[in-house]
Amino acid sequence: MREGLTVAEAESVVLEATGILGAETVSAWNAAGRVLAEAIEATRPHPPADCSAMDGYAVRRADLLGASETQPRTLPVVYEVAAGGQASRPLGAGESARIFTGAPLPPGADAVVMQEETRAEGGQVAFLVEPEPRENVRDAGEDFQAGDRLIESRTVLGSAHLGVLASLGRSIVAVHQRPTVAILSGGDELVEPDRLTDDGHIASSNSYTLAAQCREVGARPIYLGIAEDDPAAIEARLRAGLRADVIVSSAGVSVGDHDHVRGVLEKLGCRLLFWGVKMKPGYPLAFGVIEATGTLVFGLPGNPVSTAVTFEQFVRPALRKLMGHRLLHRPVVKARLARPMKKGRGRLHFVRVSLEREGDALVATPTANQSSGVLTSLIRGQGLAIFPAEAESFAAGSEVDVQIIDAGFFDRPDRGF
Amino acid sequence: MREGLTVAEAESVVLEATGILGAETVSAWNAAGRVLAEAIEATRPHPPADCSAMDGYAVRRADLLGASETQPRTLPVVYEVAAGGQASRPLGAGESARIFTGAPLPPGADAVVMQEETRAEGGQVAFLVEPEPRENVRDAGEDFQAGDRLIESRTVLGSAHLGVLASLGRSIVAVHQRPTVAILSGGDELVEPDRLTDDGHIASSNSYTLAAQCREVGARPIYLGIAEDDPAAIEARLRAGLRADVIVSSAGVSVGDHDHVRGVLEKLGCRLLFWGVKMKPGYPLAFGVIEATGTLVFGLPGNPVSTAVTFEQFVRPALRKLMGHRLLHRPVVKARLARPMKKGRGRLHFVRVSLEREGDALVATPTANQSSGVLTSLIRGQGLAIFPAEAESFAAGSEVDVQIIDAGFFDRPDRGF
Repeated sequence: MREGLTVAEAESVVLEATGILGAETVSAWNAAGRVLAEAIEATRPHPPADCSAMDGYAVRRADLLGASETQPRTLPVVYEVAAGGQASRPLGAGESARIFTGAPLPPGADAVVMQEETRAEGGQVAFLVEPEPRENVRDAGEDFQAGDRLIESRTVLGSAHLGVLASLGRSIVAVHQRPTVAILSGGDELVEPDRLTDDGHIASSNSYTLAAQCREVGARPIYLGIAEDDPAAIEARLRAGLRADVIVSSAGVSVGDHDHVRGVLEKLGCRLLFWGVKMKPGYPLAFGVIEATGTLVFGLPGNPVSTAVTFEQFVRPALRKLMGHRLLHRPVVKARLARPMKKGRGRLHFVRVSLEREGDALVATPTANQSSGVLTSLIRGQGLAIFPAEAESFAAGSEVDVQIIDAGFFDRPDRGF
Repeated sequence: MREGLTVAEAESVVLEATGILGAETVSAWNAAGRVLAEAIEATRPHPPADCSAMDGYAVRRADLLGASETQPRTLPVVYEVAAGGQASRPLGAGESARIFTGAPLPPGADAVVMQEETRAEGGQVAFLVEPEPRENVRDAGEDFQAGDRLIESRTVLGSAHLGVLASLGRSIVAVHQRPTVAILSGGDELVEPDRLTDDGHIASSNSYTLAAQCREVGARPIYLGIAEDDPAAIEARLRAGLRADVIVSSAGVSVGDHDHVRGVLEKLGCRLLFWGVKMKPGYPLAFGVIEATGTLVFGLPGNPVSTAVTFEQFVRPALRKLMGHRLLHRPVVKARLARPMKKGRGRLHFVRVSLEREGDALVATPTANQSSGVLTSLIRGQGLAIFPAEAESFAAGSEVDVQIIDAGFFDRPDRGF
């Protein structure tokens, strides 16, 4: 087992150990956000035949050359074609046919005049314009032809993809499975929030944060509860998570006498790949794989901010990889530092910052209390400013990379780009 | 009823008619993404007492002045404080206590030395550092004090907010309700995708696109099916949606003889507020309110791209307002136009574009086929370039606003900011 990795080394170990989950077939009706596990080819042209894009009249354009508001041309309406219907016969010279949006163009017709550009005159219709060739006609196969490759595998399905699938007649679709994530809390000081009293215990909040982080990324949290600081209790709870794709423990995998998680994990066949990452918050992070099942195991530090930040850096990219995503990382933006910063060498620092626009630039202001216990500092900021391990001081105004952890940031009109 | 509104006028009518849904109480466990319908105040301090941030030893700092690697100080360990436990008595001068992360600091102690900065020596412990005052001690109330206002109402709940709620002992929380959206398709040319044959009918794809657009924004779609072009059939289906918060029909509310939706809506007590918006795609858009229930009714044009784009511009902001969001709109970025564009005066154009980075700029390239029937053009682009109603021509390289409709765009490392 390696110890004291850099953030980049640790991420690389995690992602190398992480595969892509297999496919499952789900209804296209609620497949938005899922990652496609098949390539989609058109099996038929769309639209299947030339059809009208408007409510109006199908015409032979040659009959309306020179028609205008002041010199309308008048034609008889010889039949009607409804959407879902068919023309009863080809359209002859000097004839028009009432036609509705989506209805197939009658043979012989070569344009559709919108209803708004006509005037009823007795049993006939006066046309006020000369249509362009094939005006208001959707050509057969305009959207796609049979055999066209429409959507590549590994595409994240958005609403338009699902419309395209439906238009192909596809109501079910193969997507990568969503990982299940078994979440374990630990610590004798913890009680569930609904059982909090004034006896000095604190509410287990990490499980709530972690479950929401899982859901935000599309994974399925399974909460294993709070384990007592006792190997048998920890083992019993962890066994309930052995068939999950991922186990996340915020019980702490540390060096303390009361940190039994590591021993239990080894007993359960977990090969630990590293312990300790040179970052702040979050040094005491462990990662391993249960060899029999391939379950990934993350032992996150128990301080609330350390838990949340290490999830962001290591668990979230792994979950996205499992789900088939190609883009694994949170977006990073450039910002200017509102005030000078100092840090020690050796660890990369993730500093919670709020972002405000000033002129053309984003300005990053560290939130007041950077203690790794202070979860409220995470709700006051939108991002994590990244200070490299070997750097020590940063001038006010210097440029810094900020990882955006609040997805709503991009909805802000003042975000500065 | 007004006709032929500008996009801005139409949006303003829609948002004025749109309220904010009331509260419901849900489990904090799966409240991520919901909008808070109460302000959150701390009812107790957190942490509840001074406690250790590390596994190590509680000490009186005065006993370790000058301690170092080369000149360690040795103290007896007189008791142990576990997380969830209490010190058996105050710590006296010249004493230390074994302490674990989260355990309350013994009275008399004023610092904690990490285990890594100590060495066991017989039954005693050698301390290799002089701790800072209150080093590794989390102060009572460090995160928050009783009475602190922690989260404002109308906040979108992220994972950290849910952790804060849990740490307050809150396992349920009041959030704004998610709107139900009844979706009606219409047109005799349509069949459900799983019933598509080669008889010339086309698959109803708008319902799939719309359902996914609803889900992406957090609303709950209810699909009313495909209505035949017949007033009785349309009425029967719309009645099934009257208790929804929003009805979205892509059956078309147009001027054609076969567009019966408008008449049925009026019969059902819907007051139409406007018809027709000066935009492309999407002119034939209707909006009204069913007066008895307050249900918002959107009659969207039936062409797939028109349906999707008008949903984006009018339905999505309304749904976000109903859900209590303060930020209602898709993000807009600046991009340079890859090639010159021309358009007629009078309508604002939303042009599907793909975005690529070139140097410091984003370049917007219109997708090949801008026909409003071509849904595949929406999956080839990430945004809608906005060309104002009164402008006619745009040079290559000129700056254009692009509304980002693909949320994954911001995850791209090449997005250019």
